[in-house]
Amino acid sequence: MSLDAFICPICRRPYPADVRSLFCRACGDPLLSAFVPKSPAIRRGRPMGVARYLGFLPLPEFDPDLSLGEGGAPLFPLNRLRSVFRTPPLWVKNEAVNPTGSFKDRGSIVAIHMAKALGFETVGTISTGNMAGSTAAYAAKAGLRTVVFIKDDTPLEKILSAGMHGANVIRVRGNYARLFVKSFEIGRVLSFYFINSVDPYRIEGYKVTSFEIFEQMGGKAPDYLFVPVSSGGHLIGLLRGFLDLKRAGLIRRIPRIVGVQARGCAPIARAFARGRAAVAPVRKPQTIAHAIANPQPPAGRVVLKLLAAHGGAMEAVGETEILRAQRLLAEDEGLLSDPASATVLAAFLRMSKEGRIPAGAASVLVITGSGLKTLGDVDSSRLRIAEADLSDLPQLMAAWK
Amino acid sequence: MSLDAFICPICRRPYPADVRSLFCRACGDPLLSAFVPKSPAIRRGRPMGVARYLGFLPLPEFDPDLSLGEGGAPLFPLNRLRSVFRTPPLWVKNEAVNPTGSFKDRGSIVAIHMAKALGFETVGTISTGNMAGSTAAYAAKAGLRTVVFIKDDTPLEKILSAGMHGANVIRVRGNYARLFVKSFEIGRVLSFYFINSVDPYRIEGYKVTSFEIFEQMGGKAPDYLFVPVSSGGHLIGLLRGFLDLKRAGLIRRIPRIVGVQARGCAPIARAFARGRAAVAPVRKPQTIAHAIANPQPPAGRVVLKLLAAHGGAMEAVGETEILRAQRLLAEDEGLLSDPASATVLAAFLRMSKEGRIPAGAASVLVITGSGLKTLGDVDSSRLRIAEADLSDLPQLMAAWK
Repeated sequence: MSLDAFICPICRRPYPADVRSLFCRACGDPLLSAFVPKSPAIRRGRPMGVARYLGFLPLPEFDPDLSLGEGGAPLFPLNRLRSVFRTPPLWVKNEAVNPTGSFKDRGSIVAIHMAKALGFETVGTISTGNMAGSTAAYAAKAGLRTVVFIKDDTPLEKILSAGMHGANVIRVRGNYARLFVKSFEIGRVLSFYFINSVDPYRIEGYKVTSFEIFEQMGGKAPDYLFVPVSSGGHLIGLLRGFLDLKRAGLIRRIPRIVGVQARGCAPIARAFARGRAAVAPVRKPQTIAHAIANPQPPAGRVVLKLLAAHGGAMEAVGETEILRAQRLLAEDEGLLSDPASATVLAAFLRMSKEGRIPAGAASVLVITGSGLKTLGDVDSSRLRIAEADLSDLPQLMAAWK
Repeated sequence: MSLDAFICPICRRPYPADVRSLFCRACGDPLLSAFVPKSPAIRRGRPMGVARYLGFLPLPEFDPDLSLGEGGAPLFPLNRLRSVFRTPPLWVKNEAVNPTGSFKDRGSIVAIHMAKALGFETVGTISTGNMAGSTAAYAAKAGLRTVVFIKDDTPLEKILSAGMHGANVIRVRGNYARLFVKSFEIGRVLSFYFINSVDPYRIEGYKVTSFEIFEQMGGKAPDYLFVPVSSGGHLIGLLRGFLDLKRAGLIRRIPRIVGVQARGCAPIARAFARGRAAVAPVRKPQTIAHAIANPQPPAGRVVLKLLAAHGGAMEAVGETEILRAQRLLAEDEGLLSDPASATVLAAFLRMSKEGRIPAGAASVLVITGSGLKTLGDVDSSRLRIAEADLSDLPQLMAAWK
């Protein structure tokens, strides 16, 4: 199989496509795929997901035996919130309904295709939570072994789903940043493919979400696209998807992309606000939005560069806003998201209130992870839970009514 | 709105369609909708879900504002298990990817349509877990209030998702069977619509899963359909869906439906094995498959009657089989199900091993709920979790490889 090269998005230096060497030797930034779609046609007979948009992806074919049915996540309007807060029109794209409960599956299906095509027998990842579960699930489906490295203080519950898929989970004592580097060294020596959050093939997979949004909006791009930002890989993939659509002549303008972080861990948003090109690491992340509490996002500089080039922006939202947004989604729209996903509603509501979104502009909020995974963080004292004797129930209910 | 009548499936007595009176006064069994599709046409321009099969449902129209994007759950083959165990061909229909993580959403969307059409402002349910979360989510989306009655010893974690959707959760001290009766009394007095597990409209919603399976199999029915059985409502809905397809001339034969229960709480399977027409309550359910541990399934007699009429069967599987099947799904097929869903693989593997499924017969296993909801029940001592110092990691991995 001949592979499209990699490229450093900062210095434009080309690299051979070697998944054991994923960072620019000069800049240190993550490499992206240099792939440009040659036959960007939507295969309209296929269901949504990779198969339908194969011409836009660096995969020679789609192997249904590697699929868990990812893709086709619903896009629907939030009309109740729109009417309560008198906002411009808004929709959610609910990626939480993917097979393992997060958007990560979009990337895993593509990266695992590559792992199989390249003959790897073992894949690995450094993660707690969403990425470990997703990578392990797709590796299991493909018959590959998985190793997951986690920090030794990671709560057990976070890696149970990866463990259930048969992954070898190793709690590692030592410096986390060094673990990241060390894992790639191990991968090179032992021929493991470490699929990390900014893996170039994983990022190509995220493009599919943009193609689906385009079709679900009736063949056009939204004006604004809000996405939670952790490592930056998801935002880059979504942006690349819309750039592909533009290059193919299917849209004229790409959406204004708004990356959202929690103020308690907002290295990219802070750099953006200060007009910096690079990201300073956050010493102590403090936010309930654990899934995006990335103190040193590997694609931070790439995100800043791409946002500047394509008219995007970053926002940071506070804990109160996040919890309120999560509650609004659940109580008014029936959508139980994790706190990380709720950041996008918080950012949208603030920008809308401040008049920063034109009245007719269409916004799509990307929900990235399921609230079922974060029920342990719920403050149950805020819920409406009461006790009663069976015999008192009729009176209690009559009074409540 | 003129409503199709209800009917007692046991004595065939007709009833007016009144959702506050859902049980036959003579038999005590749950009433079903007497609805027969008048224009059973698949609307091929629509995505899967209620909208595509509206002609098969007792709804005058589909209101997208009530939808969370339910439906279109993936059907995919389990080729690795098929090859390891040399079984006849098998697929899963993974209902766990519905918006609230279970098949219940199929019923909730239809029942909530009816609640809105009938002018109710409050819906209720008695449930722990899946049904409470689903009903509360759809009620929230529709702007309705929800009350959830639970037993006072129900663990808090089970009702957090319903609580997050703003449901009023009441822990009720007293006899559970009496609570079930009392809830309907309260509903009649206060005009609350108690949407229970065997609600006739909920059951109509489950038909949609059968229509999708029919289309996803390329326009035919599978030979066998395995489904976990709790109250019996889901099985009845799936069966009715295939009967509709047969009546419409789209299939010639309905699948042989195999309902599966855990041996530790198998009232319907036990009655089936003994050739009984009615179900004896189980005194003490003992199974890890909590989602189907229903000691006194309200539709038990109806299930037995329908299985007898249409060539179906019931199976019961043990705890070891269930846990092994859950592990096989997760480790070999990348599918993390709850233990209740794993029962169907356990039953399939046993029947296949015993030569009770013909070599060429196509089987579909319906996965009903997400394993993300039952991570608390995982025995982590069986998972591959190790510890290491960062400096030892390269040697450790080299030895492992």
